[in-house]
Amino acid sequence: MRNINHETVTQAVLASMSNCASERLLSVMKGLVQHLHAFASEVKLTEDEWFNAIQFLTEVGAMTNDNRQEFVLLSDTLGLSMLVTAQNNRKPAACTEATVLGPFYVAGAPEFDNGDDISNGAPGVPCFVSGTVRGLSGGPVAGASLDIWQSDEDGFYDVQKVPDALGDVTHRARGRLHTRADGSFNFRSILAEPYSVPHDGPVGRMLATLGRPPWRPAHLHFWIRAQGYEPLITHVFRNDDPYLDSDPVFGVRSTLITDWIKHGAGVMPDGSVSTTEFYTLDYDFVLNPLGNMA
Amino acid sequence: MRNINHETVTQAVLASMSNCASERLLSVMKGLVQHLHAFASEVKLTEDEWFNAIQFLTEVGAMTNDNRQEFVLLSDTLGLSMLVTAQNNRKPAACTEATVLGPFYVAGAPEFDNGDDISNGAPGVPCFVSGTVRGLSGGPVAGASLDIWQSDEDGFYDVQKVPDALGDVTHRARGRLHTRADGSFNFRSILAEPYSVPHDGPVGRMLATLGRPPWRPAHLHFWIRAQGYEPLITHVFRNDDPYLDSDPVFGVRSTLITDWIKHGAGVMPDGSVSTTEFYTLDYDFVLNPLGNMA
Ligand SMILES: [Fe+2]
Ligand SMILES: [Fe+2]
Repeated sequence: MRNINHETVTQAVLASMSNCASERLLSVMKGLVQHLHAFASEVKLTEDEWFNAIQFLTEVGAMTNDNRQEFVLLSDTLGLSMLVTAQNNRKPAACTEATVLGPFYVAGAPEFDNGDDISNGAPGVPCFVSGTVRGLSGGPVAGASLDIWQSDEDGFYDVQKVPDALGDVTHRARGRLHTRADGSFNFRSILAEPYSVPHDGPVGRMLATLGRPPWRPAHLHFWIRAQGYEPLITHVFRNDDPYLDSDPVFGVRSTLITDWIKHGAGVMPDGSVSTTEFYTLDYDFVLNPLGNMA
Repeated sequence: MRNINHETVTQAVLASMSNCASERLLSVMKGLVQHLHAFASEVKLTEDEWFNAIQFLTEVGAMTNDNRQEFVLLSDTLGLSMLVTAQNNRKPAACTEATVLGPFYVAGAPEFDNGDDISNGAPGVPCFVSGTVRGLSGGPVAGASLDIWQSDEDGFYDVQKVPDALGDVTHRARGRLHTRADGSFNFRSILAEPYSVPHDGPVGRMLATLGRPPWRPAHLHFWIRAQGYEPLITHVFRNDDPYLDSDPVFGVRSTLITDWIKHGAGVMPDGSVSTTEFYTLDYDFVLNPLGNMA
């Protein structure tokens, strides 16, 4: 400990944690320190680069608040989120695959009934979504809760809008509803469009510097929870979206891509008449029973 | 890109950066992504652990401001700062060794003349510091600037005190002065004491959870700059300090430990009379000429 140099410092850090009461934490921290040091050592990180990294993280921290999670965006764009999602959600092939949560999930979304319009005035082409939630054995899952959130036609989530004087945002195109006894659900919202991940912060600057496009393929977020089943955090993507092969958060899985059907003006599924085009999307989810690994 | 899983995601992230204009940035980012993914994969990081890590970093960000750098403290306590310092400051054995900058350096410290009292009222036992700055060849370095900063006897740096209504802190036990023509310098300050790294934030919580003591051995910080020489960021430590073998930031190097001489009440080096004990510290620095690697 009195002759720390670039060759001895890693062992000194590992030794300093020998009194840690949690075996799991110790093993995670040892892995973190070893890889962090190996990274800095292999690339021969300079003092200027270290300082830039500190500045970068400071900016990520300053950009983060209750309505914006720049650290999640950083994890997403470095592929860490998808890695953690994938390695913790291995399940039988017949189950719906999971993908990243993303930075725009927030707790406390408004409750809706089946058939409701969850858009709450968010701008966009009408889109009627329906489907069924089933278990791996094929039986319907009644009373499953579905959290749904999406961006509007301008490419923004409600939580990206300017909050009111109290710091609150009006929830739009975001809500929670529950499946019926037969596992079915349906709601009206707006058509999901491709959007750019936020590029007014340090992560956006990082993507630009790396020459990486910021456009996510259009998708609808789902977080489905039901007793006796593993929670499912996933997206449904639109077939033929131009950005399916360049998702900046690496969240696309081919099984989550489906057709969103375009309809001309006329009577919509809720009986109202549209003078413009509208879309329908039908997608079924299959949940994995708790504790059932692939 | 449409079938991302835990085995393919790393390659997908690396491929996404192929348009990066800077070869150096690309190589640093590739190393970062590979080690970050290898870490998460080897320890089988869970979704809860990932979420806790996001929360932790969010707290580190919220704790960081112009007067507090919790990210630097995190880097320091993980040994990353010392690794980067050591691998970028290899120099001939006769030169003074470098150590970590630490989180308490701030720009804009007040200027002093040799002989001045830089404590500006900070509480502590008087300590008179003197020394010489020389080049590797032995010649004096005139006009070298010395930034000096230290904690007080309560274990706090000036920037840890409550700022005034304008957010400013009064600088105490912190200042900049310059060597004379013969390379010498001297000033009055207070005795450096062991202190705990800040434990009211997430990094302090991390140390406690890991069973790591937060006490740094007493030290005086120096940042010495002179034309034609590599800048030197270092500490001088006190012999016999009880924490020399458990520094939470891994900054101790045996060549930086020296005797701080205790004197009984009486006439002090500045001619004033002390009714209590005081200390003197004499330490010489040797700078490495620019571009002269070990
Ligand atoms: Fe999204
Ligand atoms: Fe210090």
